[in-house]
Amino acid sequence: MDQDQIRSLLEQVRSGAVDVNAAIDRLRHLPFEDLGFAKVDHHRALRHGIPEVIFGKGKSPDQISAIFNALQARGQNVLVTRTTAEVAQRLSSEHPAIKDQIEYFPASGAVRVWRDRTVRGKGKIAVICAGTSDLPVAEEAQITAEAMGNEVDATHDVGVAGIHRLMQNRDRFMDARVVIVCAGMEGALPSVVGGLVMAPVIAVPTSVGYGASFQGLAALLGMLNSCASNVTVVNIDNGFGAGYAASLMNRL
Amino acid sequence: MDQDQIRSLLEQVRSGAVDVNAAIDRLRHLPFEDLGFAKVDHHRALRHGIPEVIFGKGKSPDQISAIFNALQARGQNVLVTRTTAEVAQRLSSEHPAIKDQIEYFPASGAVRVWRDRTVRGKGKIAVICAGTSDLPVAEEAQITAEAMGNEVDATHDVGVAGIHRLMQNRDRFMDARVVIVCAGMEGALPSVVGGLVMAPVIAVPTSVGYGASFQGLAALLGMLNSCASNVTVVNIDNGFGAGYAASLMNRL
Amino acid sequence: MDQDQIRSLLEQVRSGAVDVNAAIDRLRHLPFEDLGFAKVDHHRALRHGIPEVIFGKGKSPDQISAIFNALQARGQNVLVTRTTAEVAQRLSSEHPAIKDQIEYFPASGAVRVWRDRTVRGKGKIAVICAGTSDLPVAEEAQITAEAMGNEVDATHDVGVAGIHRLMQNRDRFMDARVVIVCAGMEGALPSVVGGLVMAPVIAVPTSVGYGASFQGLAALLGMLNSCASNVTVVNIDNGFGAGYAASLMNRL
Amino acid sequence: MDQDQIRSLLEQVRSGAVDVNAAIDRLRHLPFEDLGFAKVDHHRALRHGIPEVIFGKGKSPDQISAIFNALQARGQNVLVTRTTAEVAQRLSSEHPAIKDQIEYFPASGAVRVWRDRTVRGKGKIAVICAGTSDLPVAEEAQITAEAMGNEVDATHDVGVAGIHRLMQNRDRFMDARVVIVCAGMEGALPSVVGGLVMAPVIAVPTSVGYGASFQGLAALLGMLNSCASNVTVVNIDNGFGAGYAASLMNRL
Amino acid sequence: MDQDQIRSLLEQVRSGAVDVNAAIDRLRHLPFEDLGFAKVDHHRALRHGIPEVIFGKGKSPDQISAIFNALQARGQNVLVTRTTAEVAQRLSSEHPAIKDQIEYFPASGAVRVWRDRTVRGKGKIAVICAGTSDLPVAEEAQITAEAMGNEVDATHDVGVAGIHRLMQNRDRFMDARVVIVCAGMEGALPSVVGGLVMAPVIAVPTSVGYGASFQGLAALLGMLNSCASNVTVVNIDNGFGAGYAASLMNRL
Amino acid sequence: MDQDQIRSLLEQVRSGAVDVNAAIDRLRHLPFEDLGFAKVDHHRALRHGIPEVIFGKGKSPDQISAIFNALQARGQNVLVTRTTAEVAQRLSSEHPAIKDQIEYFPASGAVRVWRDRTVRGKGKIAVICAGTSDLPVAEEAQITAEAMGNEVDATHDVGVAGIHRLMQNRDRFMDARVVIVCAGMEGALPSVVGGLVMAPVIAVPTSVGYGASFQGLAALLGMLNSCASNVTVVNIDNGFGAGYAASLMNRL
Amino acid sequence: MDQDQIRSLLEQVRSGAVDVNAAIDRLRHLPFEDLGFAKVDHHRALRHGIPEVIFGKGKSPDQISAIFNALQARGQNVLVTRTTAEVAQRLSSEHPAIKDQIEYFPASGAVRVWRDRTVRGKGKIAVICAGTSDLPVAEEAQITAEAMGNEVDATHDVGVAGIHRLMQNRDRFMDARVVIVCAGMEGALPSVVGGLVMAPVIAVPTSVGYGASFQGLAALLGMLNSCASNVTVVNIDNGFGAGYAASLMNRL
Amino acid sequence: MDQDQIRSLLEQVRSGAVDVNAAIDRLRHLPFEDLGFAKVDHHRALRHGIPEVIFGKGKSPDQISAIFNALQARGQNVLVTRTTAEVAQRLSSEHPAIKDQIEYFPASGAVRVWRDRTVRGKGKIAVICAGTSDLPVAEEAQITAEAMGNEVDATHDVGVAGIHRLMQNRDRFMDARVVIVCAGMEGALPSVVGGLVMAPVIAVPTSVGYGASFQGLAALLGMLNSCASNVTVVNIDNGFGAGYAASLMNRL
Repeated sequence: MDQDQIRSLLEQVRSGAVDVNAAIDRLRHLPFEDLGFAKVDHHRALRHGIPEVIFGKGKSPDQISAIFNALQARGQNVLVTRTTAEVAQRLSSEHPAIKDQIEYFPASGAVRVWRDRTVRGKGKIAVICAGTSDLPVAEEAQITAEAMGNEVDATHDVGVAGIHRLMQNRDRFMDARVVIVCAGMEGALPSVVGGLVMAPVIAVPTSVGYGASFQGLAALLGMLNSCASNVTVVNIDNGFGAGYAASLMNRL
Repeated sequence: MDQDQIRSLLEQVRSGAVDVNAAIDRLRHLPFEDLGFAKVDHHRALRHGIPEVIFGKGKSPDQISAIFNALQARGQNVLVTRTTAEVAQRLSSEHPAIKDQIEYFPASGAVRVWRDRTVRGKGKIAVICAGTSDLPVAEEAQITAEAMGNEVDATHDVGVAGIHRLMQNRDRFMDARVVIVCAGMEGALPSVVGGLVMAPVIAVPTSVGYGASFQGLAALLGMLNSCASNVTVVNIDNGFGAGYAASLMNRL
Repeated sequence: MDQDQIRSLLEQVRSGAVDVNAAIDRLRHLPFEDLGFAKVDHHRALRHGIPEVIFGKGKSPDQISAIFNALQARGQNVLVTRTTAEVAQRLSSEHPAIKDQIEYFPASGAVRVWRDRTVRGKGKIAVICAGTSDLPVAEEAQITAEAMGNEVDATHDVGVAGIHRLMQNRDRFMDARVVIVCAGMEGALPSVVGGLVMAPVIAVPTSVGYGASFQGLAALLGMLNSCASNVTVVNIDNGFGAGYAASLMNRL
Repeated sequence: MDQDQIRSLLEQVRSGAVDVNAAIDRLRHLPFEDLGFAKVDHHRALRHGIPEVIFGKGKSPDQISAIFNALQARGQNVLVTRTTAEVAQRLSSEHPAIKDQIEYFPASGAVRVWRDRTVRGKGKIAVICAGTSDLPVAEEAQITAEAMGNEVDATHDVGVAGIHRLMQNRDRFMDARVVIVCAGMEGALPSVVGGLVMAPVIAVPTSVGYGASFQGLAALLGMLNSCASNVTVVNIDNGFGAGYAASLMNRL
Repeated sequence: MDQDQIRSLLEQVRSGAVDVNAAIDRLRHLPFEDLGFAKVDHHRALRHGIPEVIFGKGKSPDQISAIFNALQARGQNVLVTRTTAEVAQRLSSEHPAIKDQIEYFPASGAVRVWRDRTVRGKGKIAVICAGTSDLPVAEEAQITAEAMGNEVDATHDVGVAGIHRLMQNRDRFMDARVVIVCAGMEGALPSVVGGLVMAPVIAVPTSVGYGASFQGLAALLGMLNSCASNVTVVNIDNGFGAGYAASLMNRL
Repeated sequence: MDQDQIRSLLEQVRSGAVDVNAAIDRLRHLPFEDLGFAKVDHHRALRHGIPEVIFGKGKSPDQISAIFNALQARGQNVLVTRTTAEVAQRLSSEHPAIKDQIEYFPASGAVRVWRDRTVRGKGKIAVICAGTSDLPVAEEAQITAEAMGNEVDATHDVGVAGIHRLMQNRDRFMDARVVIVCAGMEGALPSVVGGLVMAPVIAVPTSVGYGASFQGLAALLGMLNSCASNVTVVNIDNGFGAGYAASLMNRL
Repeated sequence: MDQDQIRSLLEQVRSGAVDVNAAIDRLRHLPFEDLGFAKVDHHRALRHGIPEVIFGKGKSPDQISAIFNALQARGQNVLVTRTTAEVAQRLSSEHPAIKDQIEYFPASGAVRVWRDRTVRGKGKIAVICAGTSDLPVAEEAQITAEAMGNEVDATHDVGVAGIHRLMQNRDRFMDARVVIVCAGMEGALPSVVGGLVMAPVIAVPTSVGYGASFQGLAALLGMLNSCASNVTVVNIDNGFGAGYAASLMNRL
Repeated sequence: MDQDQIRSLLEQVRSGAVDVNAAIDRLRHLPFEDLGFAKVDHHRALRHGIPEVIFGKGKSPDQISAIFNALQARGQNVLVTRTTAEVAQRLSSEHPAIKDQIEYFPASGAVRVWRDRTVRGKGKIAVICAGTSDLPVAEEAQITAEAMGNEVDATHDVGVAGIHRLMQNRDRFMDARVVIVCAGMEGALPSVVGGLVMAPVIAVPTSVGYGASFQGLAALLGMLNSCASNVTVVNIDNGFGAGYAASLMNRL
């Protein structure tokens, strides 16, 4: 049938009943990529205020510099995650024109060029972390969500072993549209927060801990088994992913 | 009523019937919930159209029957997950008045009393599953989301090894506000779907597979490592959790 | 008697009936226990009100019956853990004289003969469990602690996702000398309780859960990584061990 | 002060300056701690002789210095665990007034300011370690217990493969109120010690070993499966936690 | 550019320079599915002599019967893996016309309808198994490869602990174009065979073993670490996959 | 016979009936065993008093019966491990002539035909087990060692948590040439025994335990990490292997 | 030469210089290889254009240099995998005569001397990698396959989350005789590619990722559980093995 | 001396200087070893030619030097395992008198002082390793066995993927009384060797490999699941333990 549709369309083109532009337009909505579908993807970031992202870990300074060079030329927000002060310094030196726009976040090792500050989120995203050691991951989530156009309210160091501190700060997340909770060790905080709020909770296990934390496995398993049903989980230390997913939710 | 207790106490303070010190003492020992905070919780389900849920696995028919009896009396939607046809039959017999409202879903082993059909979701939730064996989990997600007031569009058996079938069905999920993807074995489908849509994707690993699937561990790890940043993950076979979280997102 | 042997030997030395070298030789080959050391062990249970325990799992009804027969003859408390109603029934039939003293606990599958009800604990042991499914383990802990002479206050179904319920019940455990916390799934409850009390907390992971709970591994790892420093952990589902250790602590 | 706020509010109610409804509203938004509950926590350390603790691992010297500065000003005992000689040196330089009170323990990498030497434990805590390589963990347990006001008797290098050495030293732990046992490799020592004493035994698996010790996993599993029922377990290498929990038990 | 190509093509269609059929043909090779691509897939089995396969495990007899009914109607070879004698019996009863063509293999639990016996493989596929317990998996590989048009030479029970038996039978696999080796326990056989032959070796770990075989994990890891570079590996017990992949290789 | 083939060939060479090149060619293709090497293997059991063994698990009664039939005909000792009383009964019925020689051991599920009782071991093999639940594995080790011609002295239920009982029984294993130690749970016994004796110790982890024993993994890891250097380890529950290896050692 | 020894022996038999019994005796003790069998192996590389390979990881520069020296003297292709620029530099310096033939590949750390460029593969091998981080592994596969005489077409950075990019490049692998797919993280690409092609697919999991990728375990499990039946798997990061196995397949 | 204490006590009893009750009391508190039992242990090494051993890993040069100093003074053989050339150099400098007796083995990082060269083993110990990378572990086994008085015949680089090389060298291990087999990667060699010899085989998994070798886990599991019943296993990389256990066996 699809062949028939195409045949019919082509015959209309041949007969002049449909002009070429209209035919292209219809074709674009038929098959997959070649007909323009992938262009959606191509321009996805541009249309959605999603920053261009370079995952810095395992890339050489040269590689990061080259990719950064290409990306920043498009004029969008750029995020480099898991890099170093040296790389941040180099990027600043190489791009004197935007030097003042280049932020470096030492805790998470992120570099951000935050040009487009359009607010796209419909409400507040709360970022909560259990201990000060979880801060790098929380920071990565926060600066991602900000660069994607969200107001972020971050609350640090409110672990479950001091439940009253969480309670004292609950005004900061009770009214958030989406809540991101970062925790290492036993990873219990998302369950407690999940029980308090009606918003979706994105749990980020961190690799904070030692011994039987097994680099975040304990926290990950804890979060996957959360007794709070509004909790979904991302990879260990994946602050970026949490910030990204939360941003999409906050646009809903 | 708890507010009434506080009001009564305060009025006694005002009238002098209780002095300030005694009032402080009584306030200090009032339970947490009495201050209004927990009331949100107490009436949460009622106000939000969240069904009462009984996790049936590991509970005896007697236990399920007793809890069901209590819950259905409140007039809300009720969901019993992971139970059996026998239990479903028994619940019908014991509640002849609502017999016609009791649905049993043999694939997922769920019982649903779907009375309140108010639509609360702002758009469509898509549920996609990779193979027919993942259907029980997809079904659990679907009936949960429906019972929470969502329109659900379910697409089955569109695994990544036949990518064109997924593509042929993409109209069914490209416009969804939230997408749930259930997959066992290698658990690759959420990454592919996540790359196609801009909506949040909730990935549900299933225990479908054998050998090195290790009861869903392979799929779980695959999904946590998804290269699509809009993917968050719930526990293995946790269709209910996916449906629940998706419902909250769809209300945003 | 062993002391008698030594006494007799020494008297023979004194009388010259045995010379020193021969005595040295005989002493060297006396079994370890004969020197009094092991007697502590032998009469440990009797002196301490510790019940005789039969771990029922993997033992045939005949084996349990035979051991029970031997143990109950000593007149102490007896505990059979992880057995069945059939075995409980059989033990009652076989011991009509103590039939009324034989309790059967269907949740945990324990049989208890609680004759010696001397209170040995100096205060209250609190047993808390996160969900109703954790009840069998909590029950095993409770009946063990009771049979070892402790007052036990058990609070059920106060999971972390409904933190206010825990708070409302905090009077039941805030004044306990030792607290036992049983939880499956993410195993977060001991951390929260541990942050509230100054007493030692014994955490018991339970095998409650599915998928990535991996039969209690998630809860176990969570508890081992607890951010509350007063938490120590026992094996998965080991209610008996928790009750036993708590009892020793409560005698301190 | 929070009590003062409530008192003030109540007095305004009594005087009619604030009406009941307004009072209810303000009470509802008072933080949890304001009701006196959390005050216990706030002053917990002060009242209980529990040292302020800085977990040094993963913190920069600057961070440790800043936190140390704040904590030591309160005049309590301070413990910095898992840090370095350099940090110890820096803390001494920065705090010349208490320089003589600052101890550095190279084996465990701990820094201790032990000002308050009040004895709070009712008896002796025994610390036993299996091999010389387990000493850092045993040391951390010991200095924690000491700083919390306990007499500690430490016995080193009494592994199970030389059972007579353990036996020769049994007088050192047979009369302890609480026993801490640190062991790596197969982690068998707590079971043997647990069978000898009636006191609670806290087992600390250490990461000592290689190959199939899997960084302490073998010892951890061994201890969790101990056939001695008075054994509870803490995280791998968690000497601090063992010392802390033992101290609480020794105050019972 | 792709749009340009399409525009150019359409303009040629309009101008008559390219006729509709030619245009369809060119379009078919451009985009993805709608233009006939998926039809390749649709007819893949038909054109390649690949049997239709039903993975029987976890499917009810009714489900298997229904799918079998549909598949066998196409006249191709059909394979049902991991089913039972009862299902085989039922399929025979329900399809009297092809009853004689329905084979049941009790070791592997497979049902085969082997109608199209065209030889498509260019040489021999050798199937070797280490022990008699590995036979079900070897059988599944063999009947799959046969149904896909290959001559198969199967050698059983030639484990590495009796290396001479393997050597005595080496003529049976030295000249094979592809070799499948099934082994449980330590999974060493593929390495030895891989060292003897120049052909590709597909290693199939089996779940045969107990204790530290962990349901085939030991064999799987052994094979992945094979020191023979011509060894590739499939999932535990996946005889079907090995037979399938070997068949594709044998057609090269 | 194979030697005969070679002899015949060489004689043909000598007589000139076969020329040298042809002889080389035929020699090259003679199977490995034909050169006498494998004959050692073929008659290994016969010459060494090693029983023929059928690993019963996973074999049908028919299969066991068929193999047993073939093996017992050779007149050697026969061992069937991990089978059932029903199979034992059937073997007795089918072989009335040797009925009295067929022993069934219900704990380990072994059947033994112990005809050749020649003592081949040069000393005593001690078998020690930690708890009564380890008895099936210890029994399998014992009957294997006996059937291979060894005097066995078995000591049961001497776990490390009651170290004095082990000590009291030390005369039973101090003079053994080889010691087999079976233990589940924490698997600590081999280390203690290994420290007491100078003989080689074969450690057998058993699957006895629950929770974090992970079906014997805890005991296995413990034994592999034993601090006693004379300990080597076999697979979980592998009493047969321990008895076999110990027998070879005892012949040294 | 070994053949010469046999020839010489046989001629002595023929001439009567050695009698038949003595000849049998000497033949029996000739090493296995002497019978011609192993010669295949000895000259395997030479006859098949298989490069000599040095696995560089864990070898000192001196060791690599020495082995390289020996291997390159045979005049074949040589491959050093997982080494460094320093070693590459050193090898060039030490072998000035072939300096121009020594290639160094910094991504994979491989050194190649590609002298024999005979094409032995019958078609094209496609190498596909999911992300740029997988490039080192893909490169190792590519240069191995090239050195074994294959035309290789490599496509990089076509991960499943951007499925259209894979589709756009499908012409590059649809006509390959063998396809190698390298992917880290969730390892989903082989399943998608496997569903598109009829060729054998060799999946190479890479250690690219973090957190729950567990150094490639997630990708490995994903690939082993692939729902595409033409996928076989090699060890994590084993580009060499994939290139080697693919080369053998491409010669079929 | 301890015997002297007992003798003195008994003589006091005989003389009446100490009465029987007092003697009993003092005997009861004599340490275990004093009764002669532990003396065996104390002089074990001296009487048995077992070298004093320092496990160097994790010990500082100062610690090793101090222990070495103490041990070498006893005049026995001394072994330092897992240390460095620097430590070896330092020990030589510090002990000029025995400088010529101090051997350093760079592959395994061992230092040996081999003074007592008495042959205590009754036959040959064969040490076999699969690849050159396994050599450090094989070397540790060899020098341990030598220092304990054994003739050792070491065969290197005879992996299972080149089975003929193992066969060619079989004369080197067929007549050994004990065989040690070291192998990494898939760990298959012990099974093959175990099938060839009647001697006890001690398998040593090595951490050689990458990816799914998981630091020796694959080899360890493979060896534990060996289908050759004469194989027992030690910890990963534990060459010392294998050499030690083999030495005890060779003295039987």
